[in-house]
Amino acid sequence: MKAGPSQEEIRRHNLGTLLRFVHLRGPASRATLAETLGLNRSTIMALTSDLTAAGLVREELPRRPGRRAGRPSLVVQPESTRVYVLAFDVAVDRLAVARVGLGGTVLDRRETERPRGELDTGDLVGALAGAARALVRKAGRDAVCVGAALAFPGIVRRADDMIMFGPNLDVDGLSLGDALARRLGLGVPVAVRNDANLGALAEHERGAGVGCDDLIYLHGDVGVGGGIIVGGRLLGGQEGYGGEIGHMVVNPGGRPCACGSRGCLETEVGERTLLAHAERDGPGRPVGRDAVRAVVDAADRGDIVARDALHRVGTWLGFGVANLVNIFNPGMVVFGGTLRDIYLGSAAQVRSVLATGALAAPRERVRLRTAELGDDVTLVGAAEYAFAEVLADPVQVLARLRGPAETALR
Amino acid sequence: MKAGPSQEEIRRHNLGTLLRFVHLRGPASRATLAETLGLNRSTIMALTSDLTAAGLVREELPRRPGRRAGRPSLVVQPESTRVYVLAFDVAVDRLAVARVGLGGTVLDRRETERPRGELDTGDLVGALAGAARALVRKAGRDAVCVGAALAFPGIVRRADDMIMFGPNLDVDGLSLGDALARRLGLGVPVAVRNDANLGALAEHERGAGVGCDDLIYLHGDVGVGGGIIVGGRLLGGQEGYGGEIGHMVVNPGGRPCACGSRGCLETEVGERTLLAHAERDGPGRPVGRDAVRAVVDAADRGDIVARDALHRVGTWLGFGVANLVNIFNPGMVVFGGTLRDIYLGSAAQVRSVLATGALAAPRERVRLRTAELGDDVTLVGAAEYAFAEVLADPVQVLARLRGPAETALR
Repeated sequence: MKAGPSQEEIRRHNLGTLLRFVHLRGPASRATLAETLGLNRSTIMALTSDLTAAGLVREELPRRPGRRAGRPSLVVQPESTRVYVLAFDVAVDRLAVARVGLGGTVLDRRETERPRGELDTGDLVGALAGAARALVRKAGRDAVCVGAALAFPGIVRRADDMIMFGPNLDVDGLSLGDALARRLGLGVPVAVRNDANLGALAEHERGAGVGCDDLIYLHGDVGVGGGIIVGGRLLGGQEGYGGEIGHMVVNPGGRPCACGSRGCLETEVGERTLLAHAERDGPGRPVGRDAVRAVVDAADRGDIVARDALHRVGTWLGFGVANLVNIFNPGMVVFGGTLRDIYLGSAAQVRSVLATGALAAPRERVRLRTAELGDDVTLVGAAEYAFAEVLADPVQVLARLRGPAETALR
Repeated sequence: MKAGPSQEEIRRHNLGTLLRFVHLRGPASRATLAETLGLNRSTIMALTSDLTAAGLVREELPRRPGRRAGRPSLVVQPESTRVYVLAFDVAVDRLAVARVGLGGTVLDRRETERPRGELDTGDLVGALAGAARALVRKAGRDAVCVGAALAFPGIVRRADDMIMFGPNLDVDGLSLGDALARRLGLGVPVAVRNDANLGALAEHERGAGVGCDDLIYLHGDVGVGGGIIVGGRLLGGQEGYGGEIGHMVVNPGGRPCACGSRGCLETEVGERTLLAHAERDGPGRPVGRDAVRAVVDAADRGDIVARDALHRVGTWLGFGVANLVNIFNPGMVVFGGTLRDIYLGSAAQVRSVLATGALAAPRERVRLRTAELGDDVTLVGAAEYAFAEVLADPVQVLARLRGPAETALR
């Protein structure tokens, strides 16, 4: 039980809310801001002026002026090129690094494929840091990095960002964020979070789930991850491990899973099982997103084996989604990563199982969607996560990052 | 995105926070309140004075004065007998009504058993209203009813409290709250909520889960219900149907469920299945809580059939709990209603399945507990829910309820 906020806390909250609005929804006039945030114009002016002084926004003439006669109203826009974050995405098959400006613009990016299998931590940190430094060098002199975050396909402890379980990369007990932050030397920590959790955040803030505050995101890489938005906030649970939907047992006694259990959703609908059902597994055969897409394409062309494989996988996916609908009464379930393709190839079967497996009341209004952010969903999520601190307390964070010389701005 | 609160909103929030503190934690000195709520003494004095004027709290000498010399400090305590709610609990086998005072004291109660089977709505509303009116008549003249809520074993739509699905009482599409409020004529609406959701609230605020903000409550009546606390708040989902853990399919192709699916947790661990496994089902045989307890008692005495029945049920309960641990990373799972007894009789098996079915990281710290509020858990939850409005805005709500003559108090 906590008492209400102080005046100073409210001011910081309002600065953050205004900045968050233009970050997520784009440039807006003072009038729009006043109306949307429920604040009067003089408060908006004061907030905008503080954010401008801190170098976080600027006011400009709109590119497409309105039709009304007279002087067009100035719009507040985020300083996209001067204020940025670094977003890292470690997937089983590839590494991606992006420099993302305030407002969500990807300013620059590097991406490399990597062979599957165990991870050499030193190599990984070296590759990520090298790519990031190249991106930073290309940023302007007055640009400031306000945060960094990394999406990882494993279970991450919230308290210290320790990777506790990452069976598909075999990296239990790794403090990847600390190692990377030291190597980068930019003076900002690198947060590490579960990739599917970040995918949920991205689709909720910038993708299919904008405006939907109860959303479930299912992400297929080699495994199956999940991210859950409850009442507008990411479900973390007691220690941040929440959302491991891939390890929900849907088929007791089913296929053995890397987690030690059997019949987990991940084992029944994952890439390996789909390729096995489709008779496309085995040494030397293609794996990864392209191999999954090839099965879906073959099914579209009428290939019976591929169709059957998708039907079987779709059945278990349907059971999983039905359980989630009953437990969460979500407004939307979003399929991303390889599950995007798998869902598109098995939607009829998923819906058929859902029709009997979920209760009528929560089933009626749930929408099943594919991730709008495509292959970048987890990378975008990492960027959004990296912006969280500056959006929570913009002026203070900027002052700290720019150093004591500029704190006078406050 | 919403701007920070106004001064008036903060004052209301602080009034509510102070009242909530003494409601849930009991009488407290101004010094304790100031320290706990993080407010200065003069603010606490002003808030206490407003709440006293509204008749919500009073200040008194503590019953057991401290050991320090000098005048003992006054304590702020809730007006338990003057401010109360009505709590209703409709279970499959019984009806209960209680008058519960601010602070959570059960001032008076009525309880009747009822035969199983379909519900005659008129009879039900009549029985509940009759019992409630008898309780209200015994309240003092200056007592005021500030809310009413009813716990129901079914799915309830948040927007209008409509019961959408209650297979064990066959009452789909019933507006029980409206009918009851009209019959009561006290000028307060009667909220209707899912019984297990209210059980979760009760255990979180007054039971095993105090201080645990990520908690799952599983409630056994004839069916199995669930209530989930995420980050300190009840998970409702898009329309309030969230928490239907009883309809998570744990055994695809298992026993048919009243919901139309098969192998739902409810069908695999519910009363009927336990009694069937224990060879105690059939026409004329005892049912309900006592019949469940008899199986657990028999198993304790070494009855092989009863032990085997609990082992089988414990296996599926273990799968269900493992899934929930993976999905939610809860700090605690609480078993209430008949599941309290079933869990106590099958804990070893539940833990054994959990050990392989849940990931190590979220499993390590989860505590499995039985409901501390016993048979009253859903009734207490209804009372807490009924207090929610007055705790959110105490002075305004009291003024409205006491009528225009007393609004001058504000």
